[in-house]
Amino acid sequence: MFSAHTYQSRRTELQKQVSEGILLFLGNIENPINFEHNVYPFRQDSTFLYYFGIQAPRIAAIIDIDQNKTIIFGDELSIDAIVWMGQQESLYEKSLKSGVQETLPFQQLSSYVQQAQKGNRTVHYLPPYQAINKLLLSELLHISIASITPSAPFIQAVVAQRSIKEVQEINEIEKALHVSAEMHLLAMRMAKPGMQELHVANAVQHYAYDQNCRFAYPPIVTVHGEILHNAYQQHYLKQGDLLLNDSGAETAMGYAGDLTRTFPVSLSFSARQRDLYNIVLKAFEEARDSMKPGVRFKDIHLLAARHLVEGLIGVGLMKGNPEEAVQAHAHTLFFQCGLGHMMGLDVHDMEDLGEQYVGYTEDEPKDTHTFGLKSLRLGRKLETGFVLTVEPGIYIIPELIDIWKKENKLSQFINYDLLETYRDFGGIRIEDNFLITADGFRLLGPELIKSAKDIENYRSNHAQ
Amino acid sequence: MFSAHTYQSRRTELQKQVSEGILLFLGNIENPINFEHNVYPFRQDSTFLYYFGIQAPRIAAIIDIDQNKTIIFGDELSIDAIVWMGQQESLYEKSLKSGVQETLPFQQLSSYVQQAQKGNRTVHYLPPYQAINKLLLSELLHISIASITPSAPFIQAVVAQRSIKEVQEINEIEKALHVSAEMHLLAMRMAKPGMQELHVANAVQHYAYDQNCRFAYPPIVTVHGEILHNAYQQHYLKQGDLLLNDSGAETAMGYAGDLTRTFPVSLSFSARQRDLYNIVLKAFEEARDSMKPGVRFKDIHLLAARHLVEGLIGVGLMKGNPEEAVQAHAHTLFFQCGLGHMMGLDVHDMEDLGEQYVGYTEDEPKDTHTFGLKSLRLGRKLETGFVLTVEPGIYIIPELIDIWKKENKLSQFINYDLLETYRDFGGIRIEDNFLITADGFRLLGPELIKSAKDIENYRSNHAQ
Repeated sequence: MFSAHTYQSRRTELQKQVSEGILLFLGNIENPINFEHNVYPFRQDSTFLYYFGIQAPRIAAIIDIDQNKTIIFGDELSIDAIVWMGQQESLYEKSLKSGVQETLPFQQLSSYVQQAQKGNRTVHYLPPYQAINKLLLSELLHISIASITPSAPFIQAVVAQRSIKEVQEINEIEKALHVSAEMHLLAMRMAKPGMQELHVANAVQHYAYDQNCRFAYPPIVTVHGEILHNAYQQHYLKQGDLLLNDSGAETAMGYAGDLTRTFPVSLSFSARQRDLYNIVLKAFEEARDSMKPGVRFKDIHLLAARHLVEGLIGVGLMKGNPEEAVQAHAHTLFFQCGLGHMMGLDVHDMEDLGEQYVGYTEDEPKDTHTFGLKSLRLGRKLETGFVLTVEPGIYIIPELIDIWKKENKLSQFINYDLLETYRDFGGIRIEDNFLITADGFRLLGPELIKSAKDIENYRSNHAQ
Repeated sequence: MFSAHTYQSRRTELQKQVSEGILLFLGNIENPINFEHNVYPFRQDSTFLYYFGIQAPRIAAIIDIDQNKTIIFGDELSIDAIVWMGQQESLYEKSLKSGVQETLPFQQLSSYVQQAQKGNRTVHYLPPYQAINKLLLSELLHISIASITPSAPFIQAVVAQRSIKEVQEINEIEKALHVSAEMHLLAMRMAKPGMQELHVANAVQHYAYDQNCRFAYPPIVTVHGEILHNAYQQHYLKQGDLLLNDSGAETAMGYAGDLTRTFPVSLSFSARQRDLYNIVLKAFEEARDSMKPGVRFKDIHLLAARHLVEGLIGVGLMKGNPEEAVQAHAHTLFFQCGLGHMMGLDVHDMEDLGEQYVGYTEDEPKDTHTFGLKSLRLGRKLETGFVLTVEPGIYIIPELIDIWKKENKLSQFINYDLLETYRDFGGIRIEDNFLITADGFRLLGPELIKSAKDIENYRSNHAQ
């Protein structure tokens, strides 16, 4: 946990922003796997962590703005539970560390909320993403699930605070990134033909767990990097494959790292692989170097797209005018997703609160229709204190090529004949995490090798 | 998956037992961790696995007994999803492997159920343990969550079938146990002073994952074996500690192993450790050897308790007549929990369906009040084909001792003065898994070293 003072001042600021009513925070539970008492590892809700820092299941909190008090609701362990689970810090002790003096049994949450409703006071709450909290909200508020209406002022105030990272938060993110970078080096040392993808993922996980971290998200470790959300990890690594490793650690306090490297299973890149790798790297560097406060991340996304197109024209896979190709969204045959996203207590920071609030503004809302842009989670102007990922890529997706080719789609920009010879190429992504600073940006975590040459050298010197 | 024929004949038998109405099976979803798209590893519901074998989130099934047809409800991947997640076997193809020819979109589940209700047909369903399925049932049946009433005939028919393991299921359980036994040997090789408990747990997990298995339950790897459900794994291993390792693998098909060994962090047991270890081992062997069809497991539990008491009298921690001590439940100061439980597709097999149905009978219901017996999950007469754990233990719980001592509770059986000198002893458990056979029992999986001497030898020869 951070200091009690940290949580107190965050709450004071929040209270000021929302100005009236009560703010209801629901923590997470221990989610059952296949029966009630066989549970997944507990993960506290990130907003709860941000304002209270308490890692315990089945608790809630209320900031009563009108009465200027804060209460944590939860149940202390019974003696039966202590016999079974051992002596533990009490909820009251934990609450004190969060700067909260008042705790009440969980059951009393209901009457507190009802009292507020009777007094015609606003009960502000955030969008629930776990079914248990949808149920709980429905019970607490005596409304149907369909009538759950999260509070826009509450969401906006939380997003405004959580978007600007404090120094101590940046330190935690860098801690996650030190572990994440080691995970990537381990993968580069161990990967070799004959292994399955899961062997690399498991070793990386083992390393993270031994540092008292966990995965910030299910890792993507695959020789089919073109499958953007590849959960299947059974493929065997072969000579000539590219292995894409998108994995990051989450610290015990809940802060994420999110790195991607792509490297050859053979000790060196093939000519084609190196060419496309360098195109992605160039787009990465250009996008990175253009980041500073006030610049729209959507524009940086499109800038990266233009550099990808220029590179693809260079190898003959695309043709025509790069600007026009990007305007026509021709790059989305190769780069279907977004350039990056906010990162913090969630790997996609605050995604539960709504992309529109986090990544966009009312004046410049998200484009939810255009292929490519609809997958861009962050489009708004950058501000000092934002932490985000930059992650351009090239993905050769046979299913998508077939669809476009059949329609002869944007054939003024795509060289379909040559592309056919790349069908089995796979995918490349390069990803680092950055802090936006007053004069530009700062790489978070250690410099993790990135150039084709550095990767080849590292593989040659260290691969087992 | 097993063969389509397997699932078909299981369903045919089930249909025969319940005889009318429709049987509604709800599969599991991918549970969100900290936002909707960051999810825990998917685990299908075990009853769904038993009757359909299909590992896919957000599907359901209906066996319409009256109309003698079976339908799987779920959504095929859109082309968008294929671009993002890659080509996958379709739900229809998976259903065929399960012997089901008919699939319908998930959305149509609702109208099918409502049609059945309109026709005054019974909609049988099982107890939901995940909030999402409580919500779904409430929507499908137009009832409140509080009105959800699982079908006793459905539960009973499922329990009757799943309790008697088929040969191919036993093979899967033995596969889980081969991996589990190796996990335990690895722990015995690697554990040494200065490590944290989590280092052992992580290595064991890594091994299981590399065998394409996962943990069947959150492992208990602790130098505080007296804490029965110890989730905290941060203690450091020291010379003189006992390390209790309760961990088991789950195969890709979902079958569990559940083994416990307790061994000294030093290379040999102290005299006190060896004495208490041998008491637990004796109780284990006596309990095991008394298992055969027709014998009440509750009686075996009490037999184990008597052997524990005899041993504890031998070392002076208890006194008086062993039979009388067990009748007075004096053993529960040392052995607070149950001797074992059913095991199969769940580590506590079918616990979601209700202990009363699984471990007990209407004639001989569970004792839900007496300390000790209320934690015994299995009490009924054993039958050929049951698979279960045997896991006696001795747990020195300071908090419990303090409570009993204050009341001078059962002091005719307890030597509180000597017990004070054992306060920091910790806990010992020995656990294997067995199949009940016509003439007794069969150990499942490999023989995993168990005697104090074998463990000391193994540690001396292999510890790193």
